Amino acid sequence: MTAPETLDGWFALHDIRTVDWRAWQALDPSERAALAGEAASLLAGWQAVNGTGRGSSGLFRIIGHKGDLLFLHFRPSVGELAELERAFETTRFAAFTERRTSFLSVVELSRHGAPPLPEGVDPAENPVLARRLRPDIPDKSHVCFYPMNKRRGETVNWFTLPTEERRELMRGHGQVGHRYAGRVVQIITGAMGLDDWEWGVTLFTDDPLDFKKLVYEMRFDPASALYAEFGPFFVGMRLEPAGLVEYLSAERSAT
Amino acid sequence: MTAPETLDGWFALHDIRTVDWRAWQALDPSERAALAGEAASLLAGWQAVNGTGRGSSGLFRIIGHKGDLLFLHFRPSVGELAELERAFETTRFAAFTERRTSFLSVVELSRHGAPPLPEGVDPAENPVLARRLRPDIPDKSHVCFYPMNKRRGETVNWFTLPTEERRELMRGHGQVGHRYAGRVVQIITGAMGLDDWEWGVTLFTDDPLDFKKLVYEMRFDPASALYAEFGPFFVGMRLEPAGLVEYLSAERSAT
Amino acid sequence: MTAPETLDGWFALHDIRTVDWRAWQALDPSERAALAGEAASLLAGWQAVNGTGRGSSGLFRIIGHKGDLLFLHFRPSVGELAELERAFETTRFAAFTERRTSFLSVVELSRHGAPPLPEGVDPAENPVLARRLRPDIPDKSHVCFYPMNKRRGETVNWFTLPTEERRELMRGHGQVGHRYAGRVVQIITGAMGLDDWEWGVTLFTDDPLDFKKLVYEMRFDPASALYAEFGPFFVGMRLEPAGLVEYLSAERSAT
Amino acid sequence: MTAPETLDGWFALHDIRTVDWRAWQALDPSERAALAGEAASLLAGWQAVNGTGRGSSGLFRIIGHKGDLLFLHFRPSVGELAELERAFETTRFAAFTERRTSFLSVVELSRHGAPPLPEGVDPAENPVLARRLRPDIPDKSHVCFYPMNKRRGETVNWFTLPTEERRELMRGHGQVGHRYAGRVVQIITGAMGLDDWEWGVTLFTDDPLDFKKLVYEMRFDPASALYAEFGPFFVGMRLEPAGLVEYLSAERSAT
Amino acid sequence: MTAPETLDGWFALHDIRTVDWRAWQALDPSERAALAGEAASLLAGWQAVNGTGRGSSGLFRIIGHKGDLLFLHFRPSVGELAELERAFETTRFAAFTERRTSFLSVVELSRHGAPPLPEGVDPAENPVLARRLRPDIPDKSHVCFYPMNKRRGETVNWFTLPTEERRELMRGHGQVGHRYAGRVVQIITGAMGLDDWEWGVTLFTDDPLDFKKLVYEMRFDPASALYAEFGPFFVGMRLEPAGLVEYLSAERSAT
Repeated sequence: MTAPETLDGWFALHDIRTVDWRAWQALDPSERAALAGEAASLLAGWQAVNGTGRGSSGLFRIIGHKGDLLFLHFRPSVGELAELERAFETTRFAAFTERRTSFLSVVELSRHGAPPLPEGVDPAENPVLARRLRPDIPDKSHVCFYPMNKRRGETVNWFTLPTEERRELMRGHGQVGHRYAGRVVQIITGAMGLDDWEWGVTLFTDDPLDFKKLVYEMRFDPASALYAEFGPFFVGMRLEPAGLVEYLSAERSAT
Repeated sequence: MTAPETLDGWFALHDIRTVDWRAWQALDPSERAALAGEAASLLAGWQAVNGTGRGSSGLFRIIGHKGDLLFLHFRPSVGELAELERAFETTRFAAFTERRTSFLSVVELSRHGAPPLPEGVDPAENPVLARRLRPDIPDKSHVCFYPMNKRRGETVNWFTLPTEERRELMRGHGQVGHRYAGRVVQIITGAMGLDDWEWGVTLFTDDPLDFKKLVYEMRFDPASALYAEFGPFFVGMRLEPAGLVEYLSAERSAT
Repeated sequence: MTAPETLDGWFALHDIRTVDWRAWQALDPSERAALAGEAASLLAGWQAVNGTGRGSSGLFRIIGHKGDLLFLHFRPSVGELAELERAFETTRFAAFTERRTSFLSVVELSRHGAPPLPEGVDPAENPVLARRLRPDIPDKSHVCFYPMNKRRGETVNWFTLPTEERRELMRGHGQVGHRYAGRVVQIITGAMGLDDWEWGVTLFTDDPLDFKKLVYEMRFDPASALYAEFGPFFVGMRLEPAGLVEYLSAERSAT
Repeated sequence: MTAPETLDGWFALHDIRTVDWRAWQALDPSERAALAGEAASLLAGWQAVNGTGRGSSGLFRIIGHKGDLLFLHFRPSVGELAELERAFETTRFAAFTERRTSFLSVVELSRHGAPPLPEGVDPAENPVLARRLRPDIPDKSHVCFYPMNKRRGETVNWFTLPTEERRELMRGHGQVGHRYAGRVVQIITGAMGLDDWEWGVTLFTDDPLDFKKLVYEMRFDPASALYAEFGPFFVGMRLEPAGLVEYLSAERSAT
Repeated sequence: MTAPETLDGWFALHDIRTVDWRAWQALDPSERAALAGEAASLLAGWQAVNGTGRGSSGLFRIIGHKGDLLFLHFRPSVGELAELERAFETTRFAAFTERRTSFLSVVELSRHGAPPLPEGVDPAENPVLARRLRPDIPDKSHVCFYPMNKRRGETVNWFTLPTEERRELMRGHGQVGHRYAGRVVQIITGAMGLDDWEWGVTLFTDDPLDFKKLVYEMRFDPASALYAEFGPFFVGMRLEPAGLVEYLSAERSAT
């Protein structure tokens, strides 16, 4: 009763919020500091699971009007993700934010790219696979997140291709990604039956020009050129709890 | 004067609302408790019809920004659904919510999959069919709801297929669903002439990974691969009245 | 200088509004009653033209999030419709509503289906046609309104079909409608040059399951299967002035 | 360095606003009168240029939810249009309005339909062309505005047609318009590089049924049937300054 | 590890905001002057980098409802752009604005059009290329910005064309642009992996009719006619700090 071509890991929630800067900047600095501290301590609490095998959480500040903050959570169950989302609303800082978008999915490894396993071995017990199915958020400064579909056009339709052809296309596609190994970490999550797009791609790097280079190169790869449909792109920079306080506390510098 | 290929049962309303957490959390806890209790007692009243053959109602908390609460109602008439929708607005809790989306439809069974009935028998008097036409909300912890259309493309068009070909495709499609029998309960509702999509699919399971597996598998089935167009997906967890109070009463834990 | 294939009657305005229930329920009951009474008397005034040949008006409560109230007006001129729309805004009740959508069109009869007229006869003087060109709102409890276009695809294009083929398709299409004669009343309005869709379809019945059956059946008719594109569907129930007062005055029942 | 197939005249701004009737009707009548008078005097000032060759301005009340007021301005430069838009915001009435849509374009005459000019003559000095390039707003009671594109489909693509074929199609298209000469005045503006659609069509008539008849007839013309894509349609009625005051001053009549 | 066909320069942020004129005009003139002065001094500070090789910034007032202000920034890193965006929110003027859209991209030169470089030379050290990769905002009065994609249709697909064919198409495309050299300055930025469109085009001229002529002419060029998909167009006029104060300080003139 398993989807035939994937391994599934932790559930993932991308929770993107805007800050109501007008109201936030109208607070007096001491109240702002108190609320920012409270938000930072919530984040620190969430991040305490990182590395424990019980999940991982991270925060990114988004560039542009599509959002200000991206909370990224990986957890074993949907229920835990629902609790994180609800818990945020109990902070006083939350009253200065609005949810703009979100994405519920599950970490997914294609069996195509996986090393062959001996019969009877649970893939989740293979340590390499296990780390990829239950990922820590990589230690990189920049994030790029976008959802995507495979095309189901009237003549160009991913879902009517023979399995072997899809496999071949994904192999070529993977090779592009491998050329960025080390520089760019990629987490693929599947969202069929969970959210409005079929997959989420979350990329991590220290040099955001890599996002452009990697996506540019992939777009000419047949798997993308013919079959990919892309949703909105979100680019952000990692914020640790102290960075969140600093970000929220910015004051107008004298000029 | 019956649509030729379906049996129609109870009308259904999927009523999805967001909570204005900013305003809600600004209430003092005792007022919050009072309003939550009032909402819970309304829900309990609605659920009192469950199992009586006069309808069924249930509540789910939604994950992500697309909504917070999904009220799901089945009733014999559109008028009763309209009253439920209006009644909710009379609660004080309703002032802290906003309707985001809704879906009006009617439980629909395809005659394709139905066991043959002797001539002159009213299908609604066959007990198995009757239970499916006037469904209780299944006793499962997770829900997935999405609306869908069949494609009417310029070359790939469900509505110009010969009846027998549509029947054959739906048969294959149904077989995928049957592999999840017991684990996943599926209620199909038809919305032509009632709402913006042609059908609604509401799935119930205790393991939300089933949503992904089932939808993933179906997407390669020709009936979906060629002909299905999907709307937004909503995933939620069942809330009984007591759970609603707990959900609404969450306080910031010390960290 | 007449569009070649239609007869045009009264102009029509579908004016759909949501109620701000949060603000409305916050009024004290006596003020609510006063404002509801004022709105009801405006409606009664509008409906006073019904049957006089000077127009017709009706009100429906909509199910779901797409609106709460549908004001439907037929009048001889655009200017009168504009005055009705503006007059509503002068009521105190209007301040608790928001316009969500609207549709400006003109009652349209296809010459295809019309009985042949002797030369030189003004179709508007044929009593049967005249009643259909200047319609009273039918005495049915439920309404279904949706706008639609005919497809102008790259290969499937209604507007490049030979006249005779369009005529033949519409004839078959009309036969589906005729099977519901007596049960479902249908008013077709044309909106080219007036609004964003080409036609509006407004159906009236006492049994809303008819909306599903009729639209379902038509969707397999070639005129729809190949050429129709549908906008949003609105389903509602008739409200007379007294019913509007009752609808607006609902109080939370004890549980 | 001129676009090869058009002559360009005045810049045009279609500025469409809704009125916040809730707030407006809450003003006391004397304040409403004062603000309406101020808005009317601004309009009168703008219209003072009409007929002087320095531009033209007009106001229309829109039917339906897509807007309440359409300010239509023709001026020699983009900068003047920007000043008009900004000037409106300085009125106290503006605080009761919201910009819903706008369209920046430039009056455009196709060389196809223009009479041949002797070599070396500046078309703008031909008096007939000059009047059409720098148009007064016609003295008609009703307006219809819609933006449009020419299709760039995968197989049906206006922009890959041979010039002569486009010319021929536009000639046939023009003939439909000529049948309405005298009754319907048409101003075509081009918006490539200026706004989101390629052209704007603004029609003026005393009988709004003409909008339907003209657009209906054109839709079967090959230039439209194959190649036109239409944006939203806005229909309105002319308001002179005194009419604006009356429109804004409407009170609830006793019933 | 470089995308094969482009050179990448500074990162770019197009930050488009609307002004809440209702609230702004409600301030008393002295407070308005103070806040406008503060915003102008922030802008002046940003523009202080112009010509220093550390970035460039400029401000434009937008015509129409899609925005009021376009802040355009070029900087060496995404982090610097994020800081500029955040810094604006610390001004008191920011509380009177709302972010409507934005575009994150990176200056991109196609290698097709670039002069051949000797082996081993870093293109960024070629002075002509360097100026184009790290551009000053041109000294022109009008701006036009629009995002675009190359089509990935089912049969017409830019990304499956042979490299040589794409190169040839871009060469022809470039020649149109070259005819406007001197009059129109064009900056192309790439946004794959960074934002929702693949490219941004920002044009600068003293005569905004050039935007129409250039885009009109290009639309018939095969690279555009077949392969271009255009997003929204924004047209604006340059504001220096003093101009911003004047723009924000406009008072209702007596009439």
